[in-house]
Amino acid sequence: MARLGFEITAHSGRARAGRLRTRRGLVDTPAFMPVGTQGTVKGLLPEEVSGLGAQMILGNTYHLLLRPGVETVAALGGLHRFMDWPGPILTDSGGFQVFSLSGLRNLGEDGVSFRSHLDGQLLHMTPESVVAAQEMLGSDLMMVLDECPPPGSPREYLAQSLERDARWAARALAARTDKGGALLGIVQGGVYSDLRARSMELLAALELDGYALGGLSVGEPKPRMMEVISSTVPQLPADKPVYLMGVGEPADLVRCVGLGVDMFDCVLPTRMARNGTLLTSTGRLNLRNSRFKDDPAPVEEGCECPTCRRYSRAYLRHLLMAKELLSYRLNTVHNLHYILQLMAGLRLAIAEDRYEIYARQVLEGLETSGPQRAALT
Amino acid sequence: MARLGFEITAHSGRARAGRLRTRRGLVDTPAFMPVGTQGTVKGLLPEEVSGLGAQMILGNTYHLLLRPGVETVAALGGLHRFMDWPGPILTDSGGFQVFSLSGLRNLGEDGVSFRSHLDGQLLHMTPESVVAAQEMLGSDLMMVLDECPPPGSPREYLAQSLERDARWAARALAARTDKGGALLGIVQGGVYSDLRARSMELLAALELDGYALGGLSVGEPKPRMMEVISSTVPQLPADKPVYLMGVGEPADLVRCVGLGVDMFDCVLPTRMARNGTLLTSTGRLNLRNSRFKDDPAPVEEGCECPTCRRYSRAYLRHLLMAKELLSYRLNTVHNLHYILQLMAGLRLAIAEDRYEIYARQVLEGLETSGPQRAALT
Repeated sequence: MARLGFEITAHSGRARAGRLRTRRGLVDTPAFMPVGTQGTVKGLLPEEVSGLGAQMILGNTYHLLLRPGVETVAALGGLHRFMDWPGPILTDSGGFQVFSLSGLRNLGEDGVSFRSHLDGQLLHMTPESVVAAQEMLGSDLMMVLDECPPPGSPREYLAQSLERDARWAARALAARTDKGGALLGIVQGGVYSDLRARSMELLAALELDGYALGGLSVGEPKPRMMEVISSTVPQLPADKPVYLMGVGEPADLVRCVGLGVDMFDCVLPTRMARNGTLLTSTGRLNLRNSRFKDDPAPVEEGCECPTCRRYSRAYLRHLLMAKELLSYRLNTVHNLHYILQLMAGLRLAIAEDRYEIYARQVLEGLETSGPQRAALT
Repeated sequence: MARLGFEITAHSGRARAGRLRTRRGLVDTPAFMPVGTQGTVKGLLPEEVSGLGAQMILGNTYHLLLRPGVETVAALGGLHRFMDWPGPILTDSGGFQVFSLSGLRNLGEDGVSFRSHLDGQLLHMTPESVVAAQEMLGSDLMMVLDECPPPGSPREYLAQSLERDARWAARALAARTDKGGALLGIVQGGVYSDLRARSMELLAALELDGYALGGLSVGEPKPRMMEVISSTVPQLPADKPVYLMGVGEPADLVRCVGLGVDMFDCVLPTRMARNGTLLTSTGRLNLRNSRFKDDPAPVEEGCECPTCRRYSRAYLRHLLMAKELLSYRLNTVHNLHYILQLMAGLRLAIAEDRYEIYARQVLEGLETSGPQRAALT
């Protein structure tokens, strides 16, 4: 049996809906995965996350490697049991954090050395070690180690880097044991179409279970990134899931689903929630705004989330200003509900072949409340 | 109809069990009230607090007066609706915070002036204004404004202060409107038996719905405090509830129930929880201790709380060390469960006239895991 089944059930333009079959259950696509960096989706219990409609969450190997350690998690029965989330978990390789969070590093053919951002300890990662780490966590969908070159890296550098990425992907596949989950490759190549094509060619020669688009949410200009996604996705094997890492802006989700992306993850909805910025169908609502001080209305009229069904903007603003723990929790529930309902709406629209109309409605709604952060256009 | 009914259903020695009848439902006594300072029991939803067995919570008038303002809460339908807690709420007068938290103050016969600890704004409280504030919140059990002299205040000062407290209590009663909840007086007098007696004499002449013991958890030596409680409680009207403010150490709860106290509130279980100190029948457990790093056991074997039923000490320690929001929540659930189950056990023991045996068992258990913080003896 394949470690990851993927069945496409509907198309609407280039958008597609389908179903991932993981060893821990089904995931409807296009899917958004809430981020549970350190073995918890911040502030929520597992049943609250699944109750909002999430079928798969993401765990961060880098963070769990440093604390509490993957051996500890393994000894306690794996990440699912540790955090009591019975559904599928995708883990990243840790590479992204090594290249963005950690200190001094040394990159070579073998792997990468880096210093823990927690205690400065010198650590080493190889394609093999990150597969082993993800297997110890019990990951259902694992990611290969890749380099994440900074935006604006020279073309020549990117060209060499993606060749090594492909060698690392082959080593990762070879290192996977029978108990390992699915393994996804990561297409690199920056904003250069020919480099992306070369990366895909190299990865397609391997027996990977899916493909992620890397380096597209780390600072390149958005219009350029959208072009890259648009030209890359059609060249990927059509029967494998496509995962766009680190993208979660509502308008971006809508547009990228329209380009054929199947999976997303992002800290945006949960991080914004903790900062008091709430997502609505008419754009963002900043709870700090004093005009909400006495506002008895819910965050969004008609919203069916557990927060909007019972609490006023005034109460939520009070909790935020008072830095109350319940603030982060109630806001996170709303934002995850918003994003997960958006994905459900997209899936339904694709099934009914009206993605284009639905997407236009959503995007117009998002623009009604004034300036939004620049979204992919 | 009386604003507060109180029915005593059983005695065991000096301990007593009963039932408070508030306008928002019954409360079994002896009762512990979780503290919801700013319109939320930190980190928990109302149904989680009630699910753990709490029948009444405490709100802090001082904090709500400053933020978001009692007018705001009133305009939004009162505190119960604001935070969606349908059960009874006791509010303090705010006096304790004025005398402990706020800045520069001016105390006179009329009331007390102070500066907000949030923004330095100059505010004034009178016996009448704090009743009005509590009525605006919709409090079911209100407290009179009193002075909270610092521990070690001279006898002469205390003697004069309690006379004014009684005049303030009379003014508070006169200020209460038809929509006001029950009103409780506060016995002061420091550690002097004759002053306590004088305070009680003055308060007993008024139509108060119950009596609190004030100034007994703010720094006086514990054995001395226990003597004061022991000598004071029997002199209070036997048909009215007795409330010991700010006491929540498990051993103290057990002992003070044995002296006839009916109601308690304290931030101890919830604050300790957020700091990683968990209450168990064998004493405190400090989750930061590295020996819990790989410990698959629950906080306490046999504990039926939602945290112990599913999570290991290792997971809870990980969340705490990673400063994860879920840590505060899961730990709070455990500690409140512990305290509320302790109270339920005391009520049952009193009903079955075996308080003495039960209390001894609990106290011996608490001492098994080594040094405890000094409890009342």
